[in-house]
Amino acid sequence: MSNTSSLPAIAESIAQAENILLVSHIRPDGDAIGSLLGLGWALEAAGKRVQMVMGDGVPKALAFLPGSERIQKSIAAPYDLSILLDCSELSRAGDVLSKEKRPDINIDHHPTNDYFAGINLVIPEAVATAEILARTLPDLGLAIPPESASALLTGLLTDTLGLRTPNMHPEVLRLAATLMEHGADLPALYFQAMVQRDFLAVRLWGAGLSRLQRDGRIVWTSLTLEDKAYVQYSGHDDADLINVLSSIAETDIAFILVEQSHDKVKISWRSRDGIDISQLATSFGGGGHKNAAGAEVNGSLSEVEEQVRTATQIAWARQIRKEQAAATPTV
Amino acid sequence: MSNTSSLPAIAESIAQAENILLVSHIRPDGDAIGSLLGLGWALEAAGKRVQMVMGDGVPKALAFLPGSERIQKSIAAPYDLSILLDCSELSRAGDVLSKEKRPDINIDHHPTNDYFAGINLVIPEAVATAEILARTLPDLGLAIPPESASALLTGLLTDTLGLRTPNMHPEVLRLAATLMEHGADLPALYFQAMVQRDFLAVRLWGAGLSRLQRDGRIVWTSLTLEDKAYVQYSGHDDADLINVLSSIAETDIAFILVEQSHDKVKISWRSRDGIDISQLATSFGGGGHKNAAGAEVNGSLSEVEEQVRTATQIAWARQIRKEQAAATPTV
Repeated sequence: MSNTSSLPAIAESIAQAENILLVSHIRPDGDAIGSLLGLGWALEAAGKRVQMVMGDGVPKALAFLPGSERIQKSIAAPYDLSILLDCSELSRAGDVLSKEKRPDINIDHHPTNDYFAGINLVIPEAVATAEILARTLPDLGLAIPPESASALLTGLLTDTLGLRTPNMHPEVLRLAATLMEHGADLPALYFQAMVQRDFLAVRLWGAGLSRLQRDGRIVWTSLTLEDKAYVQYSGHDDADLINVLSSIAETDIAFILVEQSHDKVKISWRSRDGIDISQLATSFGGGGHKNAAGAEVNGSLSEVEEQVRTATQIAWARQIRKEQAAATPTV
Repeated sequence: MSNTSSLPAIAESIAQAENILLVSHIRPDGDAIGSLLGLGWALEAAGKRVQMVMGDGVPKALAFLPGSERIQKSIAAPYDLSILLDCSELSRAGDVLSKEKRPDINIDHHPTNDYFAGINLVIPEAVATAEILARTLPDLGLAIPPESASALLTGLLTDTLGLRTPNMHPEVLRLAATLMEHGADLPALYFQAMVQRDFLAVRLWGAGLSRLQRDGRIVWTSLTLEDKAYVQYSGHDDADLINVLSSIAETDIAFILVEQSHDKVKISWRSRDGIDISQLATSFGGGGHKNAAGAEVNGSLSEVEEQVRTATQIAWARQIRKEQAAATPTV
């Protein structure tokens, strides 16, 4: 059972349930928490008892959503219906669910979803699981209270980087309009979910951008342990600086090296549409998608920078030749 | 004649005209050029001869829009109908028009518009002049070709900072959806108009962010002549760095000092909703809006920084007291 043909079965399951368990994935993003709270508030408005669980809990940056304080890290009470949200496979739920505790319903938008539940609502064309919910809650006999609208709009915004990813389609904008009319404050949510930055993160950007380098259509920089100590940034990540690098005009590939220890460096690559950097990441023992990939490499920052720079330049030249060959008509 | 009651008269004027002059404002932004090209392409598709004029020409950052190369800096041919777009007053057209050469039609969304034309279509609720056009082109008997849709969507995007300003309303999203269906490539336009940054501008950010400072809920930094020389940035502006500063969490006021010469400093302030910094800017001989203002002050960078920091702290404390007083019910 898949796609919207599963809607009547989902509506029937919800109608008969009293205690509903909602679970979303570990390392949660805005769509994980947005779809969890979006469905959670709608079920509560319909008189259901709801428990919401995410193995890793709610990250600080997403704790602004009403109800996020109610999300727990493990199952605390019995339930008679379980719904897993925004997970392409069961393992994405972490320890919360297992093969023995398979969820009854699977609602997701990932094209790689493996239909692990009894009832599956999988719509790969949707930009977010929140889109599927915003679109189908009325079919499930559920109203959309303002808290639900806010959560679902947050899921739409974060999975589309603020309504701007290549998979954006007109209906997403119309859904966002409807969610505003249900009480979601678009400008406030956009600021909180997409624009707002931590002071220390922006100071760390300063360190990285001071060393920004370009060679042809490749730009890169690094963040050292010293930078992090100097600005008092506590994370081991790049504070999203890679997104600034990938906004630079006339750039095909952007990468950033983040020193983890004196002999380990984390690398993130981003590429424009048409340039595939997933194999490049694999060659360094990492992985990822065509346009966003990463790896962790042993060695000093300067050694790794030299290796990665060279390998990225070679990969870039190969990709450009491939692109040009594809564009040249064969005689 | 104002608001939509002027639509029949505009439709009639256009129907009778053969050579139409379209003008928008000096120091053009995305809405100036977006509404100019948006209406221009629609009129051409209807068989009109159109000349498009902006006194300052098209800035490089907005030259990606098809047709922008046809926009001229002065009137080059006779016309039998003139339309001024996105100008609150006639002087915004620069030298292109004058009291003697008043435009026949005035289409604008600024609340301060002074109805200077024979026929005025002024809708202050619209987020952009492009919104007014996207909404009314069908009423004017005009189709929306793809080039027109792209230009109008660009106007919507730039005047709403990417669909996120406080004046956003659901109909803007529905209009954007319609423009996508008319052929506007939302993700590409969003990237080109809102996300893309110049390499040297981002390097300049590095210099400014390395010195980022915070005192309570005020953050600030400076850009020196040395920074600009070092990164080889040729502008005299802040390369939009103020927008990064105003994205920092738990900030009421952000400001940036840009050294213009050894005895002149330009200051830009931004404030969150509820904190009015226009008087602060006025006290330094500048001006602006409640939440975005600027000034130019004589003195060395260190002198001016000290003055501005102190004055901003005092203004902040006063504004916070005002806000608290407004929030406290009187007995």
